[in-house]
Amino acid sequence: MRKEDLLLAIPGPVPIAPSVYRAMIRPVIGHRTPQFRELNKQVHEMLKEVMCTKNDVFVLAGTGTLAMQASISNLVAPGDEVLNLVNGKFSSRFVEITETFGGKSIVYEVEDGKAIKSPDVEKALEENPNIKFVTMTLNETSTAILNPVWDIGKITRKQGKILIVDGVTAVGGDYVYADEWNIDVLVAGSQKCLGIPPGLSTIMVAPTAWEVINKRETIYDYYANLKKYKKSYEKGGDTPFTPAVTLVQGLHESLRLILEEGLENRVKRHRLMTKAVREGYKAMGLQLLAEEEYTSNTITAVKYPENIEDKEFRSKMEEKGILVAGGQEKVKGKIFRIASMNLCTQREVLTILATSEIILKELGYDLELGSGTIAAEKTLLKG
Amino acid sequence: MRKEDLLLAIPGPVPIAPSVYRAMIRPVIGHRTPQFRELNKQVHEMLKEVMCTKNDVFVLAGTGTLAMQASISNLVAPGDEVLNLVNGKFSSRFVEITETFGGKSIVYEVEDGKAIKSPDVEKALEENPNIKFVTMTLNETSTAILNPVWDIGKITRKQGKILIVDGVTAVGGDYVYADEWNIDVLVAGSQKCLGIPPGLSTIMVAPTAWEVINKRETIYDYYANLKKYKKSYEKGGDTPFTPAVTLVQGLHESLRLILEEGLENRVKRHRLMTKAVREGYKAMGLQLLAEEEYTSNTITAVKYPENIEDKEFRSKMEEKGILVAGGQEKVKGKIFRIASMNLCTQREVLTILATSEIILKELGYDLELGSGTIAAEKTLLKG
Repeated sequence: MRKEDLLLAIPGPVPIAPSVYRAMIRPVIGHRTPQFRELNKQVHEMLKEVMCTKNDVFVLAGTGTLAMQASISNLVAPGDEVLNLVNGKFSSRFVEITETFGGKSIVYEVEDGKAIKSPDVEKALEENPNIKFVTMTLNETSTAILNPVWDIGKITRKQGKILIVDGVTAVGGDYVYADEWNIDVLVAGSQKCLGIPPGLSTIMVAPTAWEVINKRETIYDYYANLKKYKKSYEKGGDTPFTPAVTLVQGLHESLRLILEEGLENRVKRHRLMTKAVREGYKAMGLQLLAEEEYTSNTITAVKYPENIEDKEFRSKMEEKGILVAGGQEKVKGKIFRIASMNLCTQREVLTILATSEIILKELGYDLELGSGTIAAEKTLLKG
Repeated sequence: MRKEDLLLAIPGPVPIAPSVYRAMIRPVIGHRTPQFRELNKQVHEMLKEVMCTKNDVFVLAGTGTLAMQASISNLVAPGDEVLNLVNGKFSSRFVEITETFGGKSIVYEVEDGKAIKSPDVEKALEENPNIKFVTMTLNETSTAILNPVWDIGKITRKQGKILIVDGVTAVGGDYVYADEWNIDVLVAGSQKCLGIPPGLSTIMVAPTAWEVINKRETIYDYYANLKKYKKSYEKGGDTPFTPAVTLVQGLHESLRLILEEGLENRVKRHRLMTKAVREGYKAMGLQLLAEEEYTSNTITAVKYPENIEDKEFRSKMEEKGILVAGGQEKVKGKIFRIASMNLCTQREVLTILATSEIILKELGYDLELGSGTIAAEKTLLKG
C-alpha cells in the first residue's frame, strides 16, 4: 500500500476534494491585488454563512491554535478571571493559553467522555462572580463529545460573560449557529470540516467581544492582533500581513463546494455517517467513550476491548490503507478514533468497519464477521 | 492577458517551480506520522544549510511577521531596552512589535535608500549602555538596501548584545552566514527566495538567544513559543501544533532544488540578474533609490522620472503581463520595485526591461529604445 493512498480517518487532515487541490495550484497571485481582495472577501462572506453569523469573521495564516491564542490574547487582560470548561485535550489548551496571557484560570473539569452541562456552568459562575470569560470546546475532538454550547450561551449572555468557543471540528461539519447560540468569539481550523489542508484558521468576533477588545490598553500580540485584521479588512478585503494565498484559494473552492452541497445536507450526511460508525462498532460489541446524549456528529471514540493493543490495531489498519487516530493524554492507548469529516460517505464508513472486523478478529477478539457492517448498512438504509 | 499568466516581479509571492506545485498537491498526510516527521527533519536540515548555521532552526505555520513576533515575544521582557535599526517598512515593524511586548524601543533611523552603518550602531550603543537587543533587517525589501549585518554582528557579539535579524528576502537568495556573522536570531518567510507560496516562516535560534529565553519567567506567546517548538522537535521531528503540511511538502521540494542548484551558484545568479536590472534602468536614465555600495542583490528600487505616474506605469506593465511592486510608506508613489528572486533568469530580466522601455516611452519619457536592454545584455554577457 503506497503511503499516498491512505484513507485519512483521522480528525484532520481529512480527505480533500480534487478541485480544492486544483485551486491550490492555480499559479500564486500577488496578495496586494484586486484579484486577491475579491477572493478574500468571497471567502469571508461564505465563512459567515457556514458559521451562521452576521458578525466579523477573519482568516488567519496559522493553524487553529493561533486562532485560539487570538481569542484570549485580544480579550483577556492580566488578572481577568476566566472559567475554562475542560473535558479533553483541546478544551484544556485554553487553560494554558489563558495562563500564558496572565488571565486567572478557574478550571471546571469533567472526566473524558462526559459533557459539560449548563447547570454546572451556572453553579461555577455563581461561586465565582468575578468571572468575565468562559471558554469551551464545542466538539471535543479528543473524546468525541459535543458540548451543549446552545444551553451555556443562554447563561453567559444573560450574565454578561464573554463566551469563547473552539469550534475546530464542528464548523462546516455540524450545526453551528454562532449568533443564535450567543457565542461571542468562535474559532475554527481549516483542515477539519472546512476541507482544506492545515495552515489557516478562522475567528468570528461578535460586537460584545469588540467592546472588550476596544477597551484593552495593551494587547500582547501583534501577528494575531484582531484590530489590525479588522482595519485592513475594512479597507476593502485586505489583510494586515501576508496571507497564505494558495490555502485561501483552496478554502474558496472548498467553501463553494460546502454551500453547493448545502449546509443542511452536509450536516445531515456527517450525522448519518457518524451514526453508522457508532452503530457498527457497537454491534461488534465495542463500547463508545462518549456519553450517548452528547456524542459528536463528526467523530467517534471507541474503547479498545481487553487484550487489543492500540499500536498493533492501528498499524494493521494502516497496512490495509486506513489511517485511524489513537487516544490523547488521559485516554492514550485506551481508545481509537474515527473521524467522518468533509468527503466522508458510506463508501468510506463501510470499508472502515469491515476492515476493523477482520483486524479485530485476527488480533483474537471474539466477534462475528459482518456484525458491524450489517448494523451500519441498516442505519444507512434508514437514513 | 489572463491574470494567471502574470510574471511576478514583486518581492513575494515569486514565481514557483512546477515541481514545488506538484509537491504541494501530493495528497495531504497526517502530521503525527513517521512520514511527516521524516519530511520535517529533512526540511530543517536543509534550512540549516541555506542559513549556514549549526543552530536550532524551526518552521512556523504562519507568515514572516509571525516569526518576527517570535523573535521578540520570546526574548524581550517588559522594560528591556531594544535598539531598533530602521531604514524602511520592514525594519520599522520591529519597533511596533517591540512596543507590543513591552520592550523599550530606542530607534536609530536613517532615511529610505541609505544603509545602517556599523559606526553609527556603535555610537548608539555607547549612548544607551542598557540596550540588551538590536534588531535590523538584512535585506530591506521596501528600499532595496542590503544592510551590513556582518559588520554590526561583530559589535553586538563583542558587547554581549543579542542581534535579531530579519532575513526575509535574503535567506535562500543571497549570502547569509548566520553563525559567521554572529546573528543570534534570524527570521525568514517562505514566499521570497525560499521559493514557495506564502504561509510558512522560519526562525534560527543561537545558544546565546536560548540563554535569554531560558531565563524568561513569563512569555506572552503560546502559538509562537519557541520552547514548545524545541521540545517537540527534539522528540523526533515533531511540531507542537498542527503544521501546514502541504506547504512543508512544497518547502522540502524547493529546498531540494536550491541545494541541487548549489547555494553559491544560486546567489551568483541572483546577484547577476539584479545587477542586470540595475544597469538596465540606469542606462534608461533612471535613478536607483539605494546607495550603490549597499544595494540589494535580490531586489531593485527605481525612482520614477518626473511626470511618470506610479499607478499608470504599473497598470500598463500589468496589462502586458508583468506585475511590478510600487513603493511603500514614505516612498509610496515615488519608486517602483523589481524583485529578481527564486526562478528569475535572464529571460525574465530582459523582457521586464524591454517592456519598461516601451511603456516609459508611451508615457512620454524621453528614452532611447533598447538602451536598457543593451546595458543588461552586456552585463549578462560579462557574467
